[in-house]
Amino acid sequence: MVIGGDGYCGWATSLHLSNKNYEVAIVDNLVRRHFDHQLGLDSLTPISSIHDRIRRWRSLTQKDINLYIGDVCDFEFLSEAFTSFKPDAVVHFGEQRSAPYSMIDRSRAVYTQQNNVLGTLNVLFAIKEFSEDCHLVKLGTMGEYGTPNIDIEEGYITITHNGRTDTLPYPKQASSFYHLSKVHDSNNIAFTCKAWGIRATDLNQGVVYGVRTDETEMHEELYNRFDYDGVFGTALNRFCVQAAVGHPLTVYGKGGQTRGYLDIRDTVQCVELAIANPAKRGEFRVFNQFTEQFSVNQLASLVTKAGEKLGIEVQTISVPNPRVEAEEHYYNAKHTKLIELGLEPHLLSDSLLDSLLNVAVQFKDRVDTKQIMPSVSWRKIGAKPKTVSA
Amino acid sequence: MVIGGDGYCGWATSLHLSNKNYEVAIVDNLVRRHFDHQLGLDSLTPISSIHDRIRRWRSLTQKDINLYIGDVCDFEFLSEAFTSFKPDAVVHFGEQRSAPYSMIDRSRAVYTQQNNVLGTLNVLFAIKEFSEDCHLVKLGTMGEYGTPNIDIEEGYITITHNGRTDTLPYPKQASSFYHLSKVHDSNNIAFTCKAWGIRATDLNQGVVYGVRTDETEMHEELYNRFDYDGVFGTALNRFCVQAAVGHPLTVYGKGGQTRGYLDIRDTVQCVELAIANPAKRGEFRVFNQFTEQFSVNQLASLVTKAGEKLGIEVQTISVPNPRVEAEEHYYNAKHTKLIELGLEPHLLSDSLLDSLLNVAVQFKDRVDTKQIMPSVSWRKIGAKPKTVSA
Repeated sequence: MVIGGDGYCGWATSLHLSNKNYEVAIVDNLVRRHFDHQLGLDSLTPISSIHDRIRRWRSLTQKDINLYIGDVCDFEFLSEAFTSFKPDAVVHFGEQRSAPYSMIDRSRAVYTQQNNVLGTLNVLFAIKEFSEDCHLVKLGTMGEYGTPNIDIEEGYITITHNGRTDTLPYPKQASSFYHLSKVHDSNNIAFTCKAWGIRATDLNQGVVYGVRTDETEMHEELYNRFDYDGVFGTALNRFCVQAAVGHPLTVYGKGGQTRGYLDIRDTVQCVELAIANPAKRGEFRVFNQFTEQFSVNQLASLVTKAGEKLGIEVQTISVPNPRVEAEEHYYNAKHTKLIELGLEPHLLSDSLLDSLLNVAVQFKDRVDTKQIMPSVSWRKIGAKPKTVSA
Repeated sequence: MVIGGDGYCGWATSLHLSNKNYEVAIVDNLVRRHFDHQLGLDSLTPISSIHDRIRRWRSLTQKDINLYIGDVCDFEFLSEAFTSFKPDAVVHFGEQRSAPYSMIDRSRAVYTQQNNVLGTLNVLFAIKEFSEDCHLVKLGTMGEYGTPNIDIEEGYITITHNGRTDTLPYPKQASSFYHLSKVHDSNNIAFTCKAWGIRATDLNQGVVYGVRTDETEMHEELYNRFDYDGVFGTALNRFCVQAAVGHPLTVYGKGGQTRGYLDIRDTVQCVELAIANPAKRGEFRVFNQFTEQFSVNQLASLVTKAGEKLGIEVQTISVPNPRVEAEEHYYNAKHTKLIELGLEPHLLSDSLLDSLLNVAVQFKDRVDTKQIMPSVSWRKIGAKPKTVSA
């Protein structure tokens, strides 16, 4: 069961698992499409409806994907989906996943924590009630850790203090209401593993880039979404679109912000590895899911060089950082557990042109340049609802 | 502004601050009284309505307490209260505060996190919007830390790891949906201190005991509540009631569970100290608010000895532990910061008879012995709503 299976990571994962002969159900309330309507945004790539996507997949592969349209915050709906599909594993992408979205105004901040935290609580109760042995694979984020001045471990850290030693949850320092919601989730899930014997894997994912996977490439009705706007666009996707349309790359502040990144082809691989090697009953397992670290300045430099190969001249500008974050900091995060399970990383150097820049160039006529600049300020978020004009 | 000012700690604090000539407003939705009605529980001590309480206080002292009845989850109401009262400090007790209540069923688990986390988000937004310099004094709990095998520090711990050092939030291991809600709050508040410059003090309070404070003793219409039931009763209050009615003291499991405890007279003192010495703008300050550590077995032994002085023979039995927790563990929690600000602790040895056992004996005819035993199991919590019969 892939909750959020109509979204960016969820759709690629659903097709990948179906292709690998897993029996797949998508659970989604389609609210991600609704956000685009409300904010006046659109995917760079044209995407089909979930119904057309699934019909096309069936006609191409003779594989069925079950579809449950509804909200995991509605426990009656979720119960129906669980008792009908009887999942052995639940992959939970079904959360509001944009930090800027969570910082638009009070109502979006509250929505993000309510939707994400209470939805995940419902998923935990559904597993306990209907499918006790089911493995929960939950998408967390590397952003839960923040940017501590020590190495980031995978979920836990062994601390010696005043002569005694314990292995404890790694301290978290999230920096948006969205990232905080994932910290809350992790804490809730860890408790239910201990109290109820839930088996869970928390995938602390880095920033995902790219749009192509083996399955989404099979037909244009299977295309994945590609977000480049200031709310849902991740840094690298946005830079590639900016390069394609001759817009300067917009580095926030000093550009020393360093994070873990991964290709969406590795996202689907990681989820499959987690499912194929489930956590034990009562185990709360944490994997850091990324393959390479880059600073924003390094990304800008890589895109500039890739642009040269395509004959595109790329400029970079610094814009005032809309976020509150360290712009120069130590960053060294461990990410060996998924490699040990068999992950074979796609590296950015190999993907940048094919899966990113060329896609951006291909669809550049669809770019709405008004959406590129940051529109949400961490400091200026207010209590009043922020409306959007045309 | 005391949010939750009609509750156990909140009422005592409101009167204490009013007595010390602070201008006090109580904000409360009175849901704590509603829980008693729904679960068929009642305070050992008879308590007056909030309206009678405030009228009596005014007639005795000529001091007014402002009253705003409503829900902090309703931002329109909260905005009205903020713009009308214009608080310099907000003391936030306004949360569902029982671990067993949060473990009754799915709907109470979800309610607890929704009410506590979203209510606190609203308080943070109200401060940012209406009263930026206002000091938030938030009641957390020592239970956020769990029972790690190393010393518990006050909010932060300095970690040296792979040759580098940082001071990070102390790792949390909460063990109920209630305790988790306070961890979520702490993380949210810490972020807003950093991002918005909120000034906040998180009071990680231990288990509070006793019912008498200087102010509540002034008149029977000012009496505080005294909970002894299996849902809202804290261990020591419950033991005293059990001793008074000849019910064996019910130790959960092995009884080695060790926690920090404090007299309610110290709760009100600590809150006053926090208000009088506010956190700086942008500072997220954490105090561990308790005065002594006891294991459950030590408490049982102290109550047994106090009973002897009153000629009461006290038995102790072990009952199956309804919780999932370590029953024998290391526990050493720091609590020096409030002492440094001037806290003068009341010790249990001095309070046990006067503020606890004699009160229990005085009101023993009001005890409903059906309410004493634990009624909520951490492991058996289900998704279906649990109803209560007469």
